Parts: sequence; structure tokens; C-alpha cells
Amino acid sequence: METRAAVAFKAGQPLSIETVTLDGPRPGEVLVEIKATGVCHTDAFTLSGDDPEGAFPAILGHEGAGVVVEVGEGVKSLKVGDHVIPLYTPECRECDYCLHPKTNLCQSIRSTQGQGLMPDGTSRFKLNGEPILHYMGCSTFSNYTVLPEIALAKIRKDAPFDKVCYIGCGVTTGVGAVAFDAKVEPGSNVVVFGLGGIGLNVIQGARMVGANKIIGVDINPSKVKLAKQFGMTDFINPKETPDLIEAIMDLTNGGADYSFECIGNVNTMRQALECCHKGWGESIIIGVAGAGQEISTRPFQLVTGRVWRGSAFGGARGRTDVPKIVDWYMDGKINIDDLITHKMPLDDINKAFDLMHSGESIRSVIEF
Amino acid sequence: METRAAVAFKAGQPLSIETVTLDGPRPGEVLVEIKATGVCHTDAFTLSGDDPEGAFPAILGHEGAGVVVEVGEGVKSLKVGDHVIPLYTPECRECDYCLHPKTNLCQSIRSTQGQGLMPDGTSRFKLNGEPILHYMGCSTFSNYTVLPEIALAKIRKDAPFDKVCYIGCGVTTGVGAVAFDAKVEPGSNVVVFGLGGIGLNVIQGARMVGANKIIGVDINPSKVKLAKQFGMTDFINPKETPDLIEAIMDLTNGGADYSFECIGNVNTMRQALECCHKGWGESIIIGVAGAGQEISTRPFQLVTGRVWRGSAFGGARGRTDVPKIVDWYMDGKINIDDLITHKMPLDDINKAFDLMHSGESIRSVIEF
Repeated sequence: METRAAVAFKAGQPLSIETVTLDGPRPGEVLVEIKATGVCHTDAFTLSGDDPEGAFPAILGHEGAGVVVEVGEGVKSLKVGDHVIPLYTPECRECDYCLHPKTNLCQSIRSTQGQGLMPDGTSRFKLNGEPILHYMGCSTFSNYTVLPEIALAKIRKDAPFDKVCYIGCGVTTGVGAVAFDAKVEPGSNVVVFGLGGIGLNVIQGARMVGANKIIGVDINPSKVKLAKQFGMTDFINPKETPDLIEAIMDLTNGGADYSFECIGNVNTMRQALECCHKGWGESIIIGVAGAGQEISTRPFQLVTGRVWRGSAFGGARGRTDVPKIVDWYMDGKINIDDLITHKMPLDDINKAFDLMHSGESIRSVIEF
Repeated sequence: METRAAVAFKAGQPLSIETVTLDGPRPGEVLVEIKATGVCHTDAFTLSGDDPEGAFPAILGHEGAGVVVEVGEGVKSLKVGDHVIPLYTPECRECDYCLHPKTNLCQSIRSTQGQGLMPDGTSRFKLNGEPILHYMGCSTFSNYTVLPEIALAKIRKDAPFDKVCYIGCGVTTGVGAVAFDAKVEPGSNVVVFGLGGIGLNVIQGARMVGANKIIGVDINPSKVKLAKQFGMTDFINPKETPDLIEAIMDLTNGGADYSFECIGNVNTMRQALECCHKGWGESIIIGVAGAGQEISTRPFQLVTGRVWRGSAFGGARGRTDVPKIVDWYMDGKINIDDLITHKMPLDDINKAFDLMHSGESIRSVIEF
């Protein structure tokens, strides 16, 4: 078949809207009509050329929602007409990782996914007879795409595609880090470094689970209003605070029960650890640091009871947890609508990148 | 009353055996006859003068066992004749720390203990009318000593003092880090950096809880024999191994489920983290690094699921857990006898320090 898609031919260049050829699903695969997709910083990172694993030409996009159009041989958990969210972290429920209680990092198709290929080592996309690579196993910047069955979460049919697509990455990364990785208890004091999209989702996750103080840290005070709407109880601007750690200790009676680094800066990662409460405070790194950068601290910080951990895709097991997060949205427990600041057709997708780079958008969504 | 004690008058000097005056227990305090005490690296560290919190003159020693001789007003949990192990980490069961499920670091008497004083801000020891400081709230290098009720674990009467005194620090630090902090599950692969006393106790803790591979890492092959006796299944000498991390990954099918750093070297702390299994491996720092030294790693190590934490006094809540560890010893689940390599009277205590510095002893015990 043919489908309209935004193709990244080279790093650093705008995407190009093309009509590409898409092969149907092979065994264990599913053809999905993408109805909406978010445009995420990770897409921009790869497009910039800074991603050492980035490969071109490729069809980017990994934050989508859509409908099953056709299933390949042997597919059992999905049928035509099912609503789905693609999963860049799949859930095979068979590998050592899926069978381990402490991780969501299913590795069953990791090597081919990293190469931009389907699990059988080939691509389904072609342009002028030449293969175009998949991206993060999803390629949601295409009206139709093919995914492995294990990389699709089946969701309820009354959930709006143009909102729940954001659960495919940003919402789950933030809300899940609170709920599935940190397992924040009611009454906890939480500190959130960085009030971008991920930080806002951490904040609303903390509110949802009954946190006590939810302290936002950002050098940009223009982010305060929305952060408060999402549940932030206190704001600290490090530029106006002589001793950030001390200020957090004061506000929390000794330190954060949980802190979340949502920036990707190794200096704030250290602050996030060191603002944690002696004895039990846990710091969770969500942000992605630049290549080669390192975090450091005195080991005394850990020996006196602080814990340093990280989170990827919010610790969510996609097929199991993503449908739950869709329920949380539909039940009004989390707010997605106010985070989706822009909507546009596929033809305007490069504007979404411009809005992101200028800081004007929280999330732009492409509707097909 | 009077008691014989080893007094540290100044940093860097041998201890001096003296007859000192000991005041009886005040309210909430207990007079204990110390029957045996281990000599630990921490005593040597303070005596050396490198401990920034070290203060003199003091009666060192923090790894003892003895019998209650007299109880002060209001003491309810102990009576004359009870057998006890002093706790440098007390357990008041009332402070924010004791009431928090994730820590054993009771803070109720921390400030006075750090100053070498009893909770009322005074010392019970005097020599020639001048006060001598307490040490780590214990001062077990004295035939008689006074401790707060909350700093004494009541233990069974059939346990031999000259063995279970080691539970007052070293055994609990190692075995407890496995059982209470890491909570190692049966079948786990465990890596232990450093095969000194703490490392051996980590090893036997891992064996006790049913670990699978227990891999020891040390540059000194003379430690292999005893480590194997205590449960080590594999040994790696980094000096003979081109790529230590790779060697551990190979032995463990992808990395350690748990690693323990029992040296106090920030470089091995990094290795201990990075040899952990992606997705779920946890590294526990037990060793104490030099002042000002820092640990570092790429945050990617944490974002991909490794956890970095520390352990102090094995995560044990002293009054609750130390009696359990005494039971484990009496039931033959852990071996203490073979770790106590030397025994001597108080008069010879400086020999114990010499044996420690020369590496000839694992643990020397002073019997009163």
C-alpha cells in the first residue's frame, strides 16, 4: 500500500512529506492507521544529528495513537478495529527483562529496533524502491505504519487519539516515573527539577498519588502558572536562591522523599540527589544528559541512606500499564488537554519542531 | 566506681591502660560489664587522627558484648543480668527515622554521641578528675561502660561473648547489608569487592539467603581460601583480568543482581555499579571513602535501570535485628568463629592494632 509520511532524509534538514510504500504486516506484525502523533524532543534530538544512534533516511515519530487495520499471521492479542498506542519500549512478556519484577526494559527486539528495522531485519517502508528506516520501532510520522504485536498497547475506544497519543511517551515518562519507578507514597514531599512537559507530568503524577509538597525548581518563572495548575505547591528559582539545597531542606523539614531530574543536566542531577532526605530520600533521573557527561557526588550521600536511580518510559510495562494511564486520563485523574498546546496537519510538521525549539509549545500534536 | 580501660589520649599514640572512674547510670541509662570487644578499623581510623570527628581523650571501642550490672531510673526494657550488645546506631523507636520504614539511622542521640557525650551532654568517665570522652556511644575498650537503654540490644544468654561481640559492628555491617538493605533474593548473582572482614560477612550473608553465584573481587589472592570457605563461588583478581566489568558480565550472564563495595575506594565503587545488570542491578556502597573523594558515572547507567545505594550498620535496627543475627550465629547459619583470628587481654590491645595494620588479623577480640 501507499501512505503519506514525513521522511527525515538527512540530519539537520527539515522533514519532507512524501508518499511512501508500506508493505503489509508479516507474521507477528500489525498494520496501524496512525490517527495522531505528538512531536517529542527525542525526535528533534535524532533529527539534529546529535543522536549517535540516529540513522537516515528514516520516518521518525514515536508518540502516536491509532487503529488496527490488518494483523499478520499468528497475532492473537489484537484484531482489526482495536485502538492502540505504539510502544517504543515493547513488552514481550517472555524475555528475561519482562519476567523480572524490577524492570520494564524488554529487550526482545532491541537490536533490530536500534537499527531501524523490524524484528526480521527488514524495513516495511520504501521510497522509489529504496528502503526507509523505521524509528524507535514506531515511525508514527506516517499515516500508516507497521509494528510488532508486542509493541502495541490496546486501549479503550472512547479515548481521543489527539490526546492519548501523548501517553505514548511524555505522559507515561513523567507520571510513570512517579507511580511505577519511585512508587511515591501519599504524604511524600517531592521535588521536581525542570518544569517542561516531563516535569509537569511528574508533578501531576505526584498529585495523583497524594504527595504532600510538590516543589518545582526552574530558572524560568514563566512556567509557574501552569505548574501550579498541575499541582506544584511551591516554586524555587535557583537564580534567586543563594543555597538551593538548603532552601529545599527548609521547605521539606530535612529533604525530599523523592526528587526527579527532568532536565538532563548533570549538575542538577547532583542537586536532585543531595536535596533528598537523609536515611530514605530517593532521586530519580529522567532527563538525558549529553554524550560523555558524568554525574558525581560524595559516597557519604548514599551511605547515609539516599538512593540514586533512573527511569525510562516511566518504568511502565507498555501493554500492561499504558491502558491504565489512558483510564487515569479518561477518569480525570490526569490532565493531558492543557499540555497539548498546538495541533496541526502532517504537512505542517516542521512548524512543530520550530515551536519546540523556540519554547512556545509544550506538546504539538499532528492529526492525520 | 572504678574500671580498667584503654584510653586514647592523643591521635597517633598507642592506647594507655588506665584505671578510670565511671559514674553510675543516670535516668534512661544502663551500666554494662563488657565481657569482650572486637577491635575494628573504625577504631584505628579515629585513633590515627584522620577522622575529622575524632576527639580526645576518649575511650574507644564500639564492638562489644556484656552483661547489665545496673539500670538507671525509668529503664524498662532491660534488667540486671541481661546479656547485651552495645549499639553505635541506637534504636529509640520514636524519632522520625525509627518510624520510617526505609532507614535504620536513628537520630535521637546523634548530636551528643558525635561529641563523645551521653544524651544529657556529660561524660560518665573521668581520670584524675578530668572527663574522658565516650566513643560512638559505646566505649567498649573499658571493662565497664554506661550506655543509653536505646543503644543496647538484648541477646540470648547462651551466646558466647567472645564471638557475638563481632555482631556489634562487622558481622551486622556485612550480613545486614545483604539481608536488610539489598534484600538479596535467592538465586541472585552477587559480586563482592574486597575480601576483608566486611567482604567475608557479605559473602556469608549472600550464602545464607540463597544467592547463586557469589563472586569475590580482590587484588590479593591469599584471601581466596577463606572466602571460598565462607561461600565465594568465583574469584576475580583485577590485576590478572584485562576487563573486570566484562569478566563479571560473562560470569553472571549480563551483570550482577547485587554488588557490594567493601573497600572504600571510589574507583571500585564505580566498577561495582557498572558491573550490575541492566534493568535491575543494585550496587551497595559499604566502604568508607577518604574525605572529599567523589564517585562518578554516566547517568545512562542509572537510566537503564541500575540503582546506587549505600548501607550503614547493615541497615539493621539494632534492638530488633541484632538479636536475630545472634540467633543466626547460634543456629549455624553464619560463621563467626573463623573470622576471629586473635584473642588477647586488654593489656595487649595495642597488639590488636598492629595485627590489623599488618593485615595479619581479620578480627582481634579483647577478652576482659
